[in-house]
Amino acid sequence: MGTSSTNGAKAPSSSTSMRPWVEDLPNSTRVEVGDLAVPFRDIAVTGEPPVRVYDTAGPLDHDLMDGLPKRRASWVAKRAGLAAPTQMWFARQGIITEEMQFCAIRENVAPEVIRDEVAAGRAIIPANLHHPELEPMIIGRKFLVKINANIGNSAVTSGIAEEVEKLQWATRWGADTVMDLSTGKNIHATREWIVRNSPVPIGTVPIYQCLEKVNGKVEDLSIDLFLETLEEQAQQGVDYFTIHAGVLLRYVPLTAKRVTGIVSRGGSIMAKWCLHHHQENFLYTHFDRICDLMRKYDVSFSLGDGLRPGCTADANDEAQFGELQTLGELTKIAWAKDCQVMIEGPGHVPMHLIQENMDLQLKVCHEAPFYTLGPLVTDIAPGYDHITSAIGAAMIGSMGTAMLCYVTPKEHLGLPNRDDVKEGVITYKIAAHAADLAKGHPGARARDDALSRARFAFRWQDQFNLSLDPVRARAFHDETLPAEGAKEAHFCSMCGPHFCSMKLTQDVRAESERQEGLKAKAAEFAATGGTIYRTASGA
Amino acid sequence: MGTSSTNGAKAPSSSTSMRPWVEDLPNSTRVEVGDLAVPFRDIAVTGEPPVRVYDTAGPLDHDLMDGLPKRRASWVAKRAGLAAPTQMWFARQGIITEEMQFCAIRENVAPEVIRDEVAAGRAIIPANLHHPELEPMIIGRKFLVKINANIGNSAVTSGIAEEVEKLQWATRWGADTVMDLSTGKNIHATREWIVRNSPVPIGTVPIYQCLEKVNGKVEDLSIDLFLETLEEQAQQGVDYFTIHAGVLLRYVPLTAKRVTGIVSRGGSIMAKWCLHHHQENFLYTHFDRICDLMRKYDVSFSLGDGLRPGCTADANDEAQFGELQTLGELTKIAWAKDCQVMIEGPGHVPMHLIQENMDLQLKVCHEAPFYTLGPLVTDIAPGYDHITSAIGAAMIGSMGTAMLCYVTPKEHLGLPNRDDVKEGVITYKIAAHAADLAKGHPGARARDDALSRARFAFRWQDQFNLSLDPVRARAFHDETLPAEGAKEAHFCSMCGPHFCSMKLTQDVRAESERQEGLKAKAAEFAATGGTIYRTASGA
Repeated sequence: MGTSSTNGAKAPSSSTSMRPWVEDLPNSTRVEVGDLAVPFRDIAVTGEPPVRVYDTAGPLDHDLMDGLPKRRASWVAKRAGLAAPTQMWFARQGIITEEMQFCAIRENVAPEVIRDEVAAGRAIIPANLHHPELEPMIIGRKFLVKINANIGNSAVTSGIAEEVEKLQWATRWGADTVMDLSTGKNIHATREWIVRNSPVPIGTVPIYQCLEKVNGKVEDLSIDLFLETLEEQAQQGVDYFTIHAGVLLRYVPLTAKRVTGIVSRGGSIMAKWCLHHHQENFLYTHFDRICDLMRKYDVSFSLGDGLRPGCTADANDEAQFGELQTLGELTKIAWAKDCQVMIEGPGHVPMHLIQENMDLQLKVCHEAPFYTLGPLVTDIAPGYDHITSAIGAAMIGSMGTAMLCYVTPKEHLGLPNRDDVKEGVITYKIAAHAADLAKGHPGARARDDALSRARFAFRWQDQFNLSLDPVRARAFHDETLPAEGAKEAHFCSMCGPHFCSMKLTQDVRAESERQEGLKAKAAEFAATGGTIYRTASGA
Repeated sequence: MGTSSTNGAKAPSSSTSMRPWVEDLPNSTRVEVGDLAVPFRDIAVTGEPPVRVYDTAGPLDHDLMDGLPKRRASWVAKRAGLAAPTQMWFARQGIITEEMQFCAIRENVAPEVIRDEVAAGRAIIPANLHHPELEPMIIGRKFLVKINANIGNSAVTSGIAEEVEKLQWATRWGADTVMDLSTGKNIHATREWIVRNSPVPIGTVPIYQCLEKVNGKVEDLSIDLFLETLEEQAQQGVDYFTIHAGVLLRYVPLTAKRVTGIVSRGGSIMAKWCLHHHQENFLYTHFDRICDLMRKYDVSFSLGDGLRPGCTADANDEAQFGELQTLGELTKIAWAKDCQVMIEGPGHVPMHLIQENMDLQLKVCHEAPFYTLGPLVTDIAPGYDHITSAIGAAMIGSMGTAMLCYVTPKEHLGLPNRDDVKEGVITYKIAAHAADLAKGHPGARARDDALSRARFAFRWQDQFNLSLDPVRARAFHDETLPAEGAKEAHFCSMCGPHFCSMKLTQDVRAESERQEGLKAKAAEFAATGGTIYRTASGA
């Protein structure tokens, strides 16, 4: 581990209480393809080729104390001394980096497509030079829809080992990026352990740590403190920062009449600072300095939506869309300095107002990738907000949103535990995959079709193994039919042996094939001289 | 209970193992409005008027052995001797029945709107004359989106008391209709107990019982046996029948090349019968006789989609849309006999193919209400198919589908238990409510807004009580912050006391109001003689 991992915090034990990977994902093998060792997971299927799926879990069985292998170390070493060693800068020079090649293999597209999308700002590859452990990935609407999982302790609960385990747990189930939202003690050390053990990009909201540094006194925040904190986190290897630079003084009064005001923590911090000093947001007024710092490390911007709606009543209002417009202006400034940018979005939005969010974002933010939290399509289901938000997430994903920030069942109520993190990640894999299917992403259907064939052929084990959560699928099946033989049975508990529609369909198919066979025979007969039939029927 | 409830089956005990209603829905009161005693649930809110919500739970605390009060007995008595005593017939005569008045109060619209929609076939009120216990409800796209829950034993598991309890459990959480899909022993007696205790319409798939009667030999099915079974069930009070009359002989071979063939049980039974006899589906050829029987009782048609796709690969194919066309023809025949009709729909459909289903159904089925199963938007998530299908259900509901058939987490894997039924119902309440919001249904927002206000004001108890599942919301909150005082606290476990964005927003609002106040004072001063300011600033 790096020297910065101390701070008096106890290091996590290298042992883990998680179930081994192979037990959670049976019949799967992690494979690494080509010179760049691009990871995939092959799911073995009876009588068919394996189904190869995108994999985010990272190398198996490494020791937390060592951190992950530094696969990017030699790639980034060559870039020392460049003023703007960002993926966007390389792309604009026409250069295809190792990271771009890596993403091309992961996404099954030509490297030139990756390069051109990054050059145009329509996609980003969040990849801090100081995060050599990263397996690069791309966020953009031409590519697979990605999902983010938030982890992080808070003043109320905490624990470093627990947070690293949450990271590994989230990526095991498919989190494409992880945001560390820690606000409690040992914030620096927790982050160090997370980055060193993360195969996926790590995002943070640096203003949280700044506020710790001023003991929660919002009015004491300053650009110098902010830049110092950015540098500290950038050096650790954080891949993207959420920065609420669009919360302008003039937008704040627009939230006063809202049902739920400002619900973004970062947004409310900046709003309070602006009002207190009656000055413009220092993240906005000093945005160029922030860019200069971030491009040195190639930390990507995630321009925060500090004024996102916190309930459906507040959706698409003047405050929200005013800020969005400002995020578009800032995007141009960041791009001028070769910084990579994505734009954060809502929040709570009823279904009929979702399309407007996507259309306006594409327009005013010049097609920079959109990264939304849900959106939740109703407010009345606390305890089920992974579902209310997955509806909105799938919809906005199919419209072109590039990354979806997950919501767990604990949203609005409490901190997610491990089960909640898994439930949130899998729910969002569903939303993202549904969007990939709707967008017609090449190859996205293969897994659905393989699972459907297994289902139809009563290959229960294949059906479980191909699913997003094999353990749960098997457990649910076994609850009604626990006998091992039932997993070979040509029926299930839903209909029982005499009513199985799949079984009946197989009979139908056999009969249909028999009749097709008869027809073919008849045709053959006709073709070889049976003209009498043709004449007779044609009369 | 009626005499038909015997059949050797053990009657359910009148005691129930369910938690009392008031514990599941705290601070709620069932109220009955007007002369017709239309039920609602009033949720008490601190410092605001109660929020009145649609209620499906039925009268509380009745004894299962007595069945529910027969509120419709006097309404239907007057209709004896009519040839077609259906809601459609009355509507077409310009008559507003008690059932229509009842629905008008429930939906908060004029009774004439109800009548006109029923007369046009755009909505149905499933209300068998022999189901006097019913609290009538309407299914149509101008009204609140409804949800159906399936219950029923099977050859593998069973139990009458359990099924009645599932009914009550499903309606407690919001099921608008319940389908009894029992296929095991005591099918008649189970149904009797269910109907006598059901405040919501009960639907069945009569072909299942027919198949029991011929010991599972599909080829022995006949129209006479079918009509006899319909009569038996109609006399018990079943409110709608799923009838797979659109599975035509010529469509069957179209399914042979599908990935998952025919997945509807009823569909595969009829397909097998057609192929075996090489004859047209007897439900189609004798459709007029079926209509004649059903209109005597005013049993509504739910024209089954026997050829619905069982995987996303098979969506929107020739077999599915061929059958839909036939269901449209049958609708016209039923309407000519004043029978009420709704149309069943898929199934498994990727998001980008959903709109076509809705558009085509409206067109070829002449705007008869659509009643879909999901649809599931991906195949890869067994164990989470309540979620994959809620995405499709919310979408198609917002497009105009009138009723959504729920899917539980056990779909494709096993029979739902009580927890699964609740999870399925609440997930579908979310989808239906999201669709109501998207359609702008009058009053639909009131509950969202009340809950959002409670959330913003840290009225935790109100937030729980206004939610779809108060027990879960409270439990999730208490997992992190169990102390009773925490439910008064102006923060929650997510951010802790120093980072609460809601708290910060309240400060912002206070500051904003202070500044508004200063402005108002200045304006007042200006208006009362401070012209110097106006002149100065206007210069």
